[in-house]
Amino acid sequence: MQQAVRYFRPNVEAMAGYVPGEQPQGDGYIKLNTNENPYPPPRSVLQAIRAAVNDRLRLYPDPLATDLRRKIAEVYGTRTERVIVGNGSDDILAMLVRAVAGPGRTVAYPVPTYSLYPTLCRIVDAPVREVPYPHDFSLPADRLVRARAALTFVASPNSPSGTVIPPAELGRLARRLRGLLAIDEAYVDFADEHCLHLVERHRNVVVLRSFSKSFSLCGIRLGFAVAREEIVEGLVKVKDSYNVNRLAQVAGVAALEAIGVMRAHAEQIRATRARLVRGLEAFGWRVYPSQANFVFARVRPPATARGIYEALKARRILVRWFDSPGLEDGLRISVGSERETDVLLRELGRLCAPHASRA
Amino acid sequence: MQQAVRYFRPNVEAMAGYVPGEQPQGDGYIKLNTNENPYPPPRSVLQAIRAAVNDRLRLYPDPLATDLRRKIAEVYGTRTERVIVGNGSDDILAMLVRAVAGPGRTVAYPVPTYSLYPTLCRIVDAPVREVPYPHDFSLPADRLVRARAALTFVASPNSPSGTVIPPAELGRLARRLRGLLAIDEAYVDFADEHCLHLVERHRNVVVLRSFSKSFSLCGIRLGFAVAREEIVEGLVKVKDSYNVNRLAQVAGVAALEAIGVMRAHAEQIRATRARLVRGLEAFGWRVYPSQANFVFARVRPPATARGIYEALKARRILVRWFDSPGLEDGLRISVGSERETDVLLRELGRLCAPHASRA
Repeated sequence: MQQAVRYFRPNVEAMAGYVPGEQPQGDGYIKLNTNENPYPPPRSVLQAIRAAVNDRLRLYPDPLATDLRRKIAEVYGTRTERVIVGNGSDDILAMLVRAVAGPGRTVAYPVPTYSLYPTLCRIVDAPVREVPYPHDFSLPADRLVRARAALTFVASPNSPSGTVIPPAELGRLARRLRGLLAIDEAYVDFADEHCLHLVERHRNVVVLRSFSKSFSLCGIRLGFAVAREEIVEGLVKVKDSYNVNRLAQVAGVAALEAIGVMRAHAEQIRATRARLVRGLEAFGWRVYPSQANFVFARVRPPATARGIYEALKARRILVRWFDSPGLEDGLRISVGSERETDVLLRELGRLCAPHASRA
Repeated sequence: MQQAVRYFRPNVEAMAGYVPGEQPQGDGYIKLNTNENPYPPPRSVLQAIRAAVNDRLRLYPDPLATDLRRKIAEVYGTRTERVIVGNGSDDILAMLVRAVAGPGRTVAYPVPTYSLYPTLCRIVDAPVREVPYPHDFSLPADRLVRARAALTFVASPNSPSGTVIPPAELGRLARRLRGLLAIDEAYVDFADEHCLHLVERHRNVVVLRSFSKSFSLCGIRLGFAVAREEIVEGLVKVKDSYNVNRLAQVAGVAALEAIGVMRAHAEQIRATRARLVRGLEAFGWRVYPSQANFVFARVRPPATARGIYEALKARRILVRWFDSPGLEDGLRISVGSERETDVLLRELGRLCAPHASRA
């Protein structure tokens, strides 16, 4: 019998990949499992992309996405040299881990949080220090500082909890850390406050943003980060040379020119979120205070989160259930449109009502 | 004075990033420096992309690009499970290095070649064994085998030489290597032979392809690789979850449906390449036998390659000059359209003629 040859690094052989939420490509689902925006991108963004679908696609994009970075700097009040763009903010998270972490260079973050972080760490064989959030999801700052990490992640709003850490607290954390503090603000456009100003005050802060959720552009893959020039320069060294394609660069500029549309959608989603929270609480579920475009709710027994997840899926409604300790009794539910929320609450009402408990 | 804090890994602090060729975003250049196709993508590809610029951009793409991988498998006679797609083939090169190489896990390749390889190795702090090509750019197989690398790259057609290694020789090399052999076929659609069949015979072979050059889609960022299932599964672990956006996935399917257009463009480029070679040889330049959409030519003294590069640039004609030992007396010139080639040869005639030698 032939012996299996191991071509990969042992840490890669041993690891499992990141498992994204289900992405059925057909129609007919109410998709509340991966925090997509229920509202379409602005018409002007679609028009700008279409106009860029021309013969110039034969040419490489600008490797440094200068026009887009200039626009981001203008809109968010910083300098072009302090902006880097990525093929989704996942691309920038990967750059950070690649440039900073590795054997002997620890990554720390409070958990539960975005499950991509440990995957990225395993790829580079970096030690991971996971610090449990207390029950109220407040910042475990002392324990994060004691981890002495080369790179610390804090997602705010956090996933799956939806909870936020006040910017002032993150500023104090930045001051106490010797390594980089990456504040993952993928969901911040649905929150009350943000941390961009911390970049001005703390040279070890990187703030990450995404066009996926609030700008309704998950399909285009675009994110950015703001940090001091020397940090951006380091990240540029480890990025793919042409990481953001021509159409995504155009989409980003157009999306920022129509930022009012994004803000109106975010406002609507916040209103729907409040209604969704009330609806779930009416079933006796415990819902965490969310400032994201999703909520995390612990299901009330005798119903189980897994049971509800499966029953909803059978009705072509997708929500996210995490099969991991501390999360398995909850569901993360994206805030959909008004109609989607109506349908969800109606179906949950049927599933949670006593006469339907065997469903 | 405040001491500079080093946030990055020492290998990243020490390295320089990859420097792509110039990408002026304005019009009016004859761009023969980064091997773009002078012909536009087929109309049907542009139409397919435009049709996909719709409200569904709010949704994530299929993380595994199943439709596109199925189409690639169908066109190239393999199985969907043996195909992985990337945000350009650069993305797949990076996955390979990330999954296979690192401290104590060497990467070997003959040089001169694509200068991204050493950059990717430095990012993961992998030892690099560069084996010089002999003057005729034949395969230095024995020395590559002796490098005992975890990963061996061979670009065929090679850049900047344009030369190819016969598939049978690469098959023999694969059999002698214990690690992976990645055959970078970014330019193979302009060549006589290819290596895809080696995947069926050798379980350590990965063949990489690009939609950038032959399919005129540099701007969309799309590449793929074919390898055994277990290798694809390993690479999937280290790829960004949603690495190829919706529009690129659609573009790839449409491009393969119009593969006849690509082949006609490639045929035209091969004809123009022959004319370009004759024109350069008429100046007394030494041109390597190219099977790519570019040629590498050593400039005849007293002209210098750098001087010609700069003089052409002043005339808004961009070619690639590499400031590195063994290459500094040559130019890599992409094969443009018939008209671009006429203009290039006319300007070179002026620069190389005796009365213009001071230009």
